[in-house]
Amino acid sequence: MTKKIVIIGGGAAGPKAAAKLRRENPDYIIDLFTDEDIISYSACGLPYFIEGIIDDINKLIVRTPEQFEKQNIHIHLNKKCIKVEPQKRHVLIKNLKTETEKTVNYDILVLATGARPFIPPIENIALKNVFSLRKLSDGINIKNAMLNSKKVTIIGGGYISIELIEAFVANHLEVTVIEPNKYIMNTFDPEISQIIQNHVLQMTKGQVYILNEDRAVKFEGKNGIVKQVITQKGKAINTDMVVIAAGVVPNTEFLNGTDLKKGCYNTIWVNNHLKTSASAIFAAGDCVEKTNQITKNPCWIPLGSIANKEGRCAALNISDNDCSFEGVLGSAVSRFFSFTMSQTGVTEKEAKAKGYEVVTATVTKKDKAGYMPDVENITLKLVVDKSSRLIFGAQAIGCGEANQRINTVSSAIGNGTRIDNFLNLDLPYSPPYSPAIDPLLNAAQIIFDKLESNKECS
Amino acid sequence: MTKKIVIIGGGAAGPKAAAKLRRENPDYIIDLFTDEDIISYSACGLPYFIEGIIDDINKLIVRTPEQFEKQNIHIHLNKKCIKVEPQKRHVLIKNLKTETEKTVNYDILVLATGARPFIPPIENIALKNVFSLRKLSDGINIKNAMLNSKKVTIIGGGYISIELIEAFVANHLEVTVIEPNKYIMNTFDPEISQIIQNHVLQMTKGQVYILNEDRAVKFEGKNGIVKQVITQKGKAINTDMVVIAAGVVPNTEFLNGTDLKKGCYNTIWVNNHLKTSASAIFAAGDCVEKTNQITKNPCWIPLGSIANKEGRCAALNISDNDCSFEGVLGSAVSRFFSFTMSQTGVTEKEAKAKGYEVVTATVTKKDKAGYMPDVENITLKLVVDKSSRLIFGAQAIGCGEANQRINTVSSAIGNGTRIDNFLNLDLPYSPPYSPAIDPLLNAAQIIFDKLESNKECS
Repeated sequence: MTKKIVIIGGGAAGPKAAAKLRRENPDYIIDLFTDEDIISYSACGLPYFIEGIIDDINKLIVRTPEQFEKQNIHIHLNKKCIKVEPQKRHVLIKNLKTETEKTVNYDILVLATGARPFIPPIENIALKNVFSLRKLSDGINIKNAMLNSKKVTIIGGGYISIELIEAFVANHLEVTVIEPNKYIMNTFDPEISQIIQNHVLQMTKGQVYILNEDRAVKFEGKNGIVKQVITQKGKAINTDMVVIAAGVVPNTEFLNGTDLKKGCYNTIWVNNHLKTSASAIFAAGDCVEKTNQITKNPCWIPLGSIANKEGRCAALNISDNDCSFEGVLGSAVSRFFSFTMSQTGVTEKEAKAKGYEVVTATVTKKDKAGYMPDVENITLKLVVDKSSRLIFGAQAIGCGEANQRINTVSSAIGNGTRIDNFLNLDLPYSPPYSPAIDPLLNAAQIIFDKLESNKECS
Repeated sequence: MTKKIVIIGGGAAGPKAAAKLRRENPDYIIDLFTDEDIISYSACGLPYFIEGIIDDINKLIVRTPEQFEKQNIHIHLNKKCIKVEPQKRHVLIKNLKTETEKTVNYDILVLATGARPFIPPIENIALKNVFSLRKLSDGINIKNAMLNSKKVTIIGGGYISIELIEAFVANHLEVTVIEPNKYIMNTFDPEISQIIQNHVLQMTKGQVYILNEDRAVKFEGKNGIVKQVITQKGKAINTDMVVIAAGVVPNTEFLNGTDLKKGCYNTIWVNNHLKTSASAIFAAGDCVEKTNQITKNPCWIPLGSIANKEGRCAALNISDNDCSFEGVLGSAVSRFFSFTMSQTGVTEKEAKAKGYEVVTATVTKKDKAGYMPDVENITLKLVVDKSSRLIFGAQAIGCGEANQRINTVSSAIGNGTRIDNFLNLDLPYSPPYSPAIDPLLNAAQIIFDKLESNKECS
């Protein structure tokens, strides 16, 4: 009997699952519903469209509905899933254009509804020129507003924020960032975040202003357009536009009233085969809970690379293969002009919060042979669990080649590597690519020596 | 009692051992003898000095004899070790300036005599303007000759050759390369070497000429200066200078007559603590045999990064620590202008020659998100052992970020990773750094699918 597979969500995981299901079985009936008027695009590219590095927003579209139709995958745009009834094996779909509703039956359901920007409780949030960034249309709207603005305020100082700062600085706006933590880029350990924040401030020479340990509480407008941001500490920041980049929340409200098990942060719980607690329902992407590969704790790190892998893995399990998804490391990278910020695994503060005793080493070293004219520094922090001696995480930042080192550590952590082994890694060497002894091995050596000398370390 | 430690050799391993010994113990009496008039320099940087990227050759000097003397490490320049007498615990040292000899006693001896260019049997090899590249003075001599030359011939097409081609092309010379194999860069699998060779030829548009499957047999000169290279196949190549880059041989002849155990290719055998077969004698660097970490076979892959590690490890063992050196992967990287060539582990041809059945995947993919304006391709080959499913090696080339991927694979191999695990690596993703699914994972997936489908694969 031919399976009828319904997929909810058109971001990364849904289209990936659809494409993989089709490759696995030409007979599946595949219908994908999305509440957007477009599917399968790279939201991660939007800051570069806003900046102007990517001239045409259509370049961010991975595959069009027509391309999916050619593969006999039916794409239903502007159709929002508002209810799931696991017992009846159907979903309730609302047509956002006509406001009509209808039920759609399924044999297998894939929930890939993603996440949306978290909007903090700020007074007058409905003023014009207040944006968040998630969809293609958000990117277009922010870009249009930017071209008519001189001052912008960004609420939040994480990965999306730092990419937007670059975009706005490149377009000659004055940028104010309001960040509740002591430094921006709070997913790094504080001494690393501090270096990042200092770099951003120094490099932009007065064009960027960062308000730390404060929050936006109110917007003031004029003619319905935002003109001022008032903070908890009473600062008033003049602005022509605001972008809220304060994190995301999963799109799971449509599941309220069902008995599908929830995960942390209101996500959907799944097992390591991407199966939900309800029979015949899988879930993948930003809407599902993850498992931290190191601590084995539930976590929620919503990232496009993971969504792709989960969509694929869910499709394989639906097709009677055995695909196990063993969790995430939280590997992430971003850049601020030529400055790279990359991390993997757990930070020192995260490890300590989970009760681990860790040993760390932070080195600032040249990224290639010191005599090469394009040599740059990187600052690298390595985190190792004291009792197991397993590599737990790394952070690397700088104008030098930082991301290569984090890829190397991701590979080590993913394979359960102890410092004793990591220390001896045979990494390729040539003057344009690294010093004779890689900064990673310098840091590893320091940790090894600390462990051997039994000193108090961390 | 204070140990008297004698080190023979001033390249990478010797000075590294000396510096580490001093840090371990301020009381050691450390004497380092070298037959050169300089120590502790980066030979790997010489092609960039010749090219002109590095303006001052002194930048290649890591530490001067004076800096060592400040640490109470005695450097003896122009002093060549001509004989070792393990039973008497002394060495015979010849002063190359005065031609006098004297014996020097040791408690511990470290042999770090390195390697020198292999000079093939070519008639009239003593003509002027015939060079090889190893020492600083070689770099200066080649550069001076280059500045007065229009045509250069390079004997051999390996890593040093490709860096010299760049240097000569950048200085507007016509370059002829004579390579005995079907393609240059023969340490890669042939289909990868072919891409490299094609790239070199296309990019240089007639400025580089490669003679494959041929050898130089004779030089013809005029006024004592080389003017023509005659090949085995009878070609005559007009030239103003020649650089021999046909591999290296270990400097171990001074050990003839002793009963020190030799390794493959006339190297010095050492155990995994860098101890030779004679008591109180350690050896490190390019002059010693290595162990291939994957095949566990003896091998000889002389590289600066390894020499540094071995020098350090030998020093630790001399200082009564326990440092085990577990072998090499043969990780190496080089560039030709913006084109990177990087590899680690064993190639398909090497694996097959050793009797392994391997499964491979070769992909040509974008190195970052396809819509980024500076996106470039890389070609990546992954080699996996069929029976153990262990990652055995990888080769990555291209104008895109190839070396990051090889570092990642080096880390995986170094930790004994199976394809099943590698497939799920959580690598950092952001449009300027990689596609949402890294080329490494594409290649891994292909191999996994081949293994699962039990097809004939490789």
